[in-house]
Amino acid sequence: MIDTRVATWPEIKEYIDRRAVAILAFGAQEEHGPHLPLSTDTVEAGGLARRLAEELDAMLLPPIPYGDSWGAGGFPGTVSITFSTIYSLIIDIGKSLKFNHVRGLIVVNGHFGNHNPIELAARELTAQSDFPTMMLDFPGLVEIAGQVLESKPAAPTFYHADEFETSMVLALEPTTVHMDRAQAEYPEFPVSYYSEPILLNTFCKSGVFGDPRPATAEKGKRMLEMLTRENLKIARAFIDRIDTRENGLKP
Amino acid sequence: MIDTRVATWPEIKEYIDRRAVAILAFGAQEEHGPHLPLSTDTVEAGGLARRLAEELDAMLLPPIPYGDSWGAGGFPGTVSITFSTIYSLIIDIGKSLKFNHVRGLIVVNGHFGNHNPIELAARELTAQSDFPTMMLDFPGLVEIAGQVLESKPAAPTFYHADEFETSMVLALEPTTVHMDRAQAEYPEFPVSYYSEPILLNTFCKSGVFGDPRPATAEKGKRMLEMLTRENLKIARAFIDRIDTRENGLKP
Amino acid sequence: MIDTRVATWPEIKEYIDRRAVAILAFGAQEEHGPHLPLSTDTVEAGGLARRLAEELDAMLLPPIPYGDSWGAGGFPGTVSITFSTIYSLIIDIGKSLKFNHVRGLIVVNGHFGNHNPIELAARELTAQSDFPTMMLDFPGLVEIAGQVLESKPAAPTFYHADEFETSMVLALEPTTVHMDRAQAEYPEFPVSYYSEPILLNTFCKSGVFGDPRPATAEKGKRMLEMLTRENLKIARAFIDRIDTRENGLKP
Amino acid sequence: MIDTRVATWPEIKEYIDRRAVAILAFGAQEEHGPHLPLSTDTVEAGGLARRLAEELDAMLLPPIPYGDSWGAGGFPGTVSITFSTIYSLIIDIGKSLKFNHVRGLIVVNGHFGNHNPIELAARELTAQSDFPTMMLDFPGLVEIAGQVLESKPAAPTFYHADEFETSMVLALEPTTVHMDRAQAEYPEFPVSYYSEPILLNTFCKSGVFGDPRPATAEKGKRMLEMLTRENLKIARAFIDRIDTRENGLKP
Amino acid sequence: MIDTRVATWPEIKEYIDRRAVAILAFGAQEEHGPHLPLSTDTVEAGGLARRLAEELDAMLLPPIPYGDSWGAGGFPGTVSITFSTIYSLIIDIGKSLKFNHVRGLIVVNGHFGNHNPIELAARELTAQSDFPTMMLDFPGLVEIAGQVLESKPAAPTFYHADEFETSMVLALEPTTVHMDRAQAEYPEFPVSYYSEPILLNTFCKSGVFGDPRPATAEKGKRMLEMLTRENLKIARAFIDRIDTRENGLKP
Amino acid sequence: MIDTRVATWPEIKEYIDRRAVAILAFGAQEEHGPHLPLSTDTVEAGGLARRLAEELDAMLLPPIPYGDSWGAGGFPGTVSITFSTIYSLIIDIGKSLKFNHVRGLIVVNGHFGNHNPIELAARELTAQSDFPTMMLDFPGLVEIAGQVLESKPAAPTFYHADEFETSMVLALEPTTVHMDRAQAEYPEFPVSYYSEPILLNTFCKSGVFGDPRPATAEKGKRMLEMLTRENLKIARAFIDRIDTRENGLKP
Repeated sequence: MIDTRVATWPEIKEYIDRRAVAILAFGAQEEHGPHLPLSTDTVEAGGLARRLAEELDAMLLPPIPYGDSWGAGGFPGTVSITFSTIYSLIIDIGKSLKFNHVRGLIVVNGHFGNHNPIELAARELTAQSDFPTMMLDFPGLVEIAGQVLESKPAAPTFYHADEFETSMVLALEPTTVHMDRAQAEYPEFPVSYYSEPILLNTFCKSGVFGDPRPATAEKGKRMLEMLTRENLKIARAFIDRIDTRENGLKP
Repeated sequence: MIDTRVATWPEIKEYIDRRAVAILAFGAQEEHGPHLPLSTDTVEAGGLARRLAEELDAMLLPPIPYGDSWGAGGFPGTVSITFSTIYSLIIDIGKSLKFNHVRGLIVVNGHFGNHNPIELAARELTAQSDFPTMMLDFPGLVEIAGQVLESKPAAPTFYHADEFETSMVLALEPTTVHMDRAQAEYPEFPVSYYSEPILLNTFCKSGVFGDPRPATAEKGKRMLEMLTRENLKIARAFIDRIDTRENGLKP
Repeated sequence: MIDTRVATWPEIKEYIDRRAVAILAFGAQEEHGPHLPLSTDTVEAGGLARRLAEELDAMLLPPIPYGDSWGAGGFPGTVSITFSTIYSLIIDIGKSLKFNHVRGLIVVNGHFGNHNPIELAARELTAQSDFPTMMLDFPGLVEIAGQVLESKPAAPTFYHADEFETSMVLALEPTTVHMDRAQAEYPEFPVSYYSEPILLNTFCKSGVFGDPRPATAEKGKRMLEMLTRENLKIARAFIDRIDTRENGLKP
Repeated sequence: MIDTRVATWPEIKEYIDRRAVAILAFGAQEEHGPHLPLSTDTVEAGGLARRLAEELDAMLLPPIPYGDSWGAGGFPGTVSITFSTIYSLIIDIGKSLKFNHVRGLIVVNGHFGNHNPIELAARELTAQSDFPTMMLDFPGLVEIAGQVLESKPAAPTFYHADEFETSMVLALEPTTVHMDRAQAEYPEFPVSYYSEPILLNTFCKSGVFGDPRPATAEKGKRMLEMLTRENLKIARAFIDRIDTRENGLKP
Repeated sequence: MIDTRVATWPEIKEYIDRRAVAILAFGAQEEHGPHLPLSTDTVEAGGLARRLAEELDAMLLPPIPYGDSWGAGGFPGTVSITFSTIYSLIIDIGKSLKFNHVRGLIVVNGHFGNHNPIELAARELTAQSDFPTMMLDFPGLVEIAGQVLESKPAAPTFYHADEFETSMVLALEPTTVHMDRAQAEYPEFPVSYYSEPILLNTFCKSGVFGDPRPATAEKGKRMLEMLTRENLKIARAFIDRIDTRENGLKP
Repeated sequence: MIDTRVATWPEIKEYIDRRAVAILAFGAQEEHGPHLPLSTDTVEAGGLARRLAEELDAMLLPPIPYGDSWGAGGFPGTVSITFSTIYSLIIDIGKSLKFNHVRGLIVVNGHFGNHNPIELAARELTAQSDFPTMMLDFPGLVEIAGQVLESKPAAPTFYHADEFETSMVLALEPTTVHMDRAQAEYPEFPVSYYSEPILLNTFCKSGVFGDPRPATAEKGKRMLEMLTRENLKIARAFIDRIDTRENGLKP
């Protein structure tokens, strides 16, 4: 594994020559309650991406610390970038990697709001630019969280500033967590929440969704391991197919 | 309810004057196996939109018969439009309705691939153009299908040319269904299916996902009713909030 | 001829295999006076496209029911989409057809406001994507109308909600016409009408331009036949040139 | 009238203060046979714009010497710009004039291929930016040419490198015309010419459409005068409406 | 050298056949004090482009008379076009020249504000469209001005409506210069001038930066010659590399 | 000063309430010879941004670790993003900060290739979105480098992987520097280097421009201090003007 942030170009050349893939964490800068840092999603994606790079002996790219945090925009400190900018970042980075003869790209997404533009960019890069690209977005999360956590999520598949995220940051960057300020909130979601645009701060006071108090670094480490195992399974399937182009997108 | 396709402008004026909302079905033109028409998704969205318009005494717009069917693009006859075109259609239609003093827009989406651009456009119209817009995308589908259908879906939340869709078209436009050609296929999904772009025809021969053979018009009618009930609940919550702008997006 | 809306993919495969062209009607949703439906232009283009598909044994695509109706935007019920969205629709559909190995595309345009973006898209698809595309826009209309109609148009080459359009809809979808509400209006066009943007409702009350009262289904059928003959002549010339690329745009 | 190309800013300030309109000629750089310069359309638009500016005591802007000459692109020397660039030029110039408190803009178009993007930009500037903009595109040309010229055009309303254009350039910039090389060509237009994209050089050898030989400077001057009269009528109607916004686009 | 504005297409064909390059002057329409015309930058670029075309026996294209003059937008008469329009103009013209088999393009830029978009377009044309394009932007100007001029510039490398520009226009188009109105102004630049967007008229009254009074046509001619020599050196290096593609951008 | 990466939203709210500005470092991921990390420019911009935030008690945003490194694209490991993506990032972040009631934005740019898009975005945010934005791009660098460094730059104002950059990284992140691999290279720049697009690796082997060997952390610290002083002077002038809008862009 090579961390390209601190590497020099001749060191990276070796990885490209031996046909390594690149791994990019995509995060966000958004409110995570009074006890977690704004960079929580970046920290999580970064942690998963690093583990994956280690297992695959891949090239780890610098993480992108902003994402589409429109829904959290009503909380101070949230900085959101748009769909098209996220899409363009992935397209640009993919094309640049291809120009450099890198074999393929795995994007580890740490924030739900980034899912759609990364997915669209991966499709475009793979189909139009012949540069195989995939996205890993916490596969198996619901099952893993169900096995490890003691508290309930605020809504099905909705994990934000709760026991899950707090455990993850406790495992990855513990000094940024303020457990003394951790508080639970189970807001009532508007009936139309998943169907119309609604800012989260209109129905949630603290920015916490669920109960972060039972979080521990131990749980975080265990979940990181389980998520890494899921990620690896899929990433290896992706890499195996890169040369055969079994996705139907032969150039 | 007024069907704006066959109405004249003075008739529509009355609806606008009494502050009715507009309802738009968004469909697709894509393969649905050897027994269902390419317009299956348009038929389903159109049927749901019409029922909703009746219940809400709303203005029913002509349905859009194309969607983002990239994944099905390897099957003959599939005609796909892109993310940005779908997005632009919703934006244009929303702005045009606003210019006409229509109160708000409900998009009934009949095809999974359209979800992301419609969602983004609804956000943009609501937040930037002060034109409240929402999307209904088969809310409650998994529960409803679980209650009514006899066969299993080919993958969780994946309903395509199967008992669900076949029942729906049998209920809505039965002459276009060829039950004699209906066949079951339970393809094996690639491990990386949800993480990288893959054309469906690389792992599915018939275009059928699941078993359409137990489908009946009766089941279709029952599910239409249940889905309409779910849609109504959410649509009414949306309409109730239009004037108060409780979504945090007060202009 | 195959109507792709109600066809299945294996049926369409046969047409593609025998190198059929695709035909797309482009319509509009705009006011047509107190007696004609908003979908008048879609009905007309759809009717012409169907006849053409029959004669050429082609693939008939679902019509697009919205167009650029900016000028009629001051009348309730008009829903307008923009130049760039119309352009993108044609580009997307053309590229998707090409991906499916369809031989070429004929767009039958039913609304004046769509002319420019379809023309530009046809150029782009033909020259840049090597996918031959053409547009038919009521060729020979002035002569044909002159031969069949009893009333004068409100302005040269300007046919809107008048005897021409009313006859056409009477021939194609008679139940949507309200002849009892038909009235004549010969508005005075502003001197600068063709040179600056002006909304039609600033100088026309009813939305009728001319006199629809002498309209009959018989006249509509006769004109449909004559227009089809003109369309066929041009479409066949286009198809004959597809393989030779005599348009100067050899790839 | 002030020619802003050679004027200084304090001189222009006076015109803006007294609420003058600006006039912009839009030309093209394209083949006009072996006897006319590539800038023929710019020369014509420039000549008309200057006369108009004189009559209206307006601000004459520097002409734009490129247009959309796609069709003539097969002839050496043609330099074409695209729809969107022409559109952007008008939008930019309009917004810049509005920032400078200019009252309105009249675009004198010298080339058929520029019609669509200028029209769209005029609509956008007027409706969205509240900056009244119009286009003059040889109004009355067919009648005027019919009265003055001895030769027939190569096709109805098609005037290119023929007696009309040659007379115009003879009147405006005679030293650039080579009457000794003038030759007639009446090419046969493909049946589908107005319906599909076709390069002109596939059916025309010389780049001349019609017969330029009877052209004289005298005819050119007479037509310039007649065209100016038509332009003036429309321009004055436009200017009269600027303050009342009778176009239905009141901000 | 051939001036393509007044040339005919068969004359230009000869130049293309012998592999000549094209030269385009890019100017601006902006205030240049009370004594210089708004077209000053166009005049300067045009003069340099013509000399270069003569020396290289190249094809001289019509100059573009507008540029990005955002900073001068507060002075009456300035007409500014945007970054993306300038970029598109160069891209369009480059692609059109390539379609015509022209060998390469040299853009002579007369206005600082155009530098960035032309540079980006040259990169894009060269790298993506395989059409070698370069920009000449007064190379050696500081040294040349230092040798010839008597007055100091208002700020390092800042020459606007001063002795430099006045001498140039006196040499190239003397009738447009009003030396009797020439006045000196040495405005105080805000500390943050180069770091934040600031309109020039907020700290400069006359639009003159420096002292134009010592300007003479003689100085202008001398500097034109020196600048031409610098331009030629670079242009010839560019042309020499066109066929070898030593820029690393081999297609 | 608050580091928003590790802060929580209630902590940031305090800064916004007291009208602090935000500071964003913009870096790059590109080759810096065999002895410096790819993130050199991000490290430098980040270091300067942090010092500035401390002095101004501002909100420090997470740095962006990619930039426009097109020229260095021929070296392995360089990852470049495009002009329009950089522009969009600044626009998005600016608008998001404005939505959050932040007072203004200072972008500290660490890489020459980012200058143009950041400058354009700052103009757009300030003029169109009424959100004051500025860019600091190593003001005073040439003077400071001249005072502190022992070696010559490879070309005037060209500092890359040389004594300047090596000293800076030695001061900021010394563990990433490999002084044992530091080597000097004074490549010969092509005559047309500043006028046409050329990849750096076509004339430079090591990726080093100049002589990094005399670099020391001490020099780096001294230059950091001097640069911070320059930055502060300009930043304070900018902040002083925020409320008065003396830039001529009063909304």
